[in-house]
Amino acid sequence: MRAGKNSKSGVALMLAGALCVTGIVQADTEGQDVYRSGTQGAFSGAPELFTGDVQVEMIFPENDVANYSAAYVTFEPGARTAWHEHPAGQHMIMISGVGLTGTRDGNVVSFKEGDAVWCPPDVDHWHGATPDQAMTHLVVTASKDGQNVIWKEKVSDEHYQPAE
Amino acid sequence: MRAGKNSKSGVALMLAGALCVTGIVQADTEGQDVYRSGTQGAFSGAPELFTGDVQVEMIFPENDVANYSAAYVTFEPGARTAWHEHPAGQHMIMISGVGLTGTRDGNVVSFKEGDAVWCPPDVDHWHGATPDQAMTHLVVTASKDGQNVIWKEKVSDEHYQPAE
Repeated sequence: MRAGKNSKSGVALMLAGALCVTGIVQADTEGQDVYRSGTQGAFSGAPELFTGDVQVEMIFPENDVANYSAAYVTFEPGARTAWHEHPAGQHMIMISGVGLTGTRDGNVVSFKEGDAVWCPPDVDHWHGATPDQAMTHLVVTASKDGQNVIWKEKVSDEHYQPAE
Repeated sequence: MRAGKNSKSGVALMLAGALCVTGIVQADTEGQDVYRSGTQGAFSGAPELFTGDVQVEMIFPENDVANYSAAYVTFEPGARTAWHEHPAGQHMIMISGVGLTGTRDGNVVSFKEGDAVWCPPDVDHWHGATPDQAMTHLVVTASKDGQNVIWKEKVSDEHYQPAE
């Protein structure tokens, strides 16, 4: 049961990055699972899926009840994801710095500490840092039929543009 | 459609606290919703549901696809929730300080910055700060049949005890 949960998390990690570390769960208290910092897997964004330096640190995996996982994702200045969609959507919460997120209509929106963005299922988007500052956001990503992201081509310099 | 989303969020707020502010959504980009900091409602924990001073700031509401909302919850030293359960579970992510969470078996676990805790559906628990330090955690709480929390009695000093 526990192994099943972790292998599902592992699939999500493999979809997003290069190095996958199996999460460790400590069931310290009746029915509650504790995921200690640094035990859930950390990896660099794969160069075919990200432009620039991107670090991912998993916070908690999805489980049999909650079909969403959480991770901190940190982008160095100018770094961004490739275009992608989330079959069950994704929330992004800005932790530090300023984030940019763009859609196929050409709009690029910036969001700051405490702001959140909801990307609905099947909407192509990208997200990343501004050109001059690193940023960290917390992403909550749900999955559908075992899939939480569908990757597409990288974001050109033309599409990567500050919102303001 | 948008009004329906916000009123659902309003129900969740009313379950948890005293002062409810309707959330504002800015659909700034194709298909993506932006929830600006400070626009989603903030309230003090109601005295019948919390011991001590507790502040809640909503981050994003649940929607038609994602049945979970997120909020920052800050507890002053010694403050804690009443006993409660979550019909669809809750994740807690520690942002600053040290958190305590207890279950009916008498176990109290502490969790630190970067740690996360999963409370499955229908498990009675409480959470709060340590006696000597404030703490802020980010909670992701799912709902089932429109309900995301069932409140019970307040936590006695006997049950509120540091884990270490």
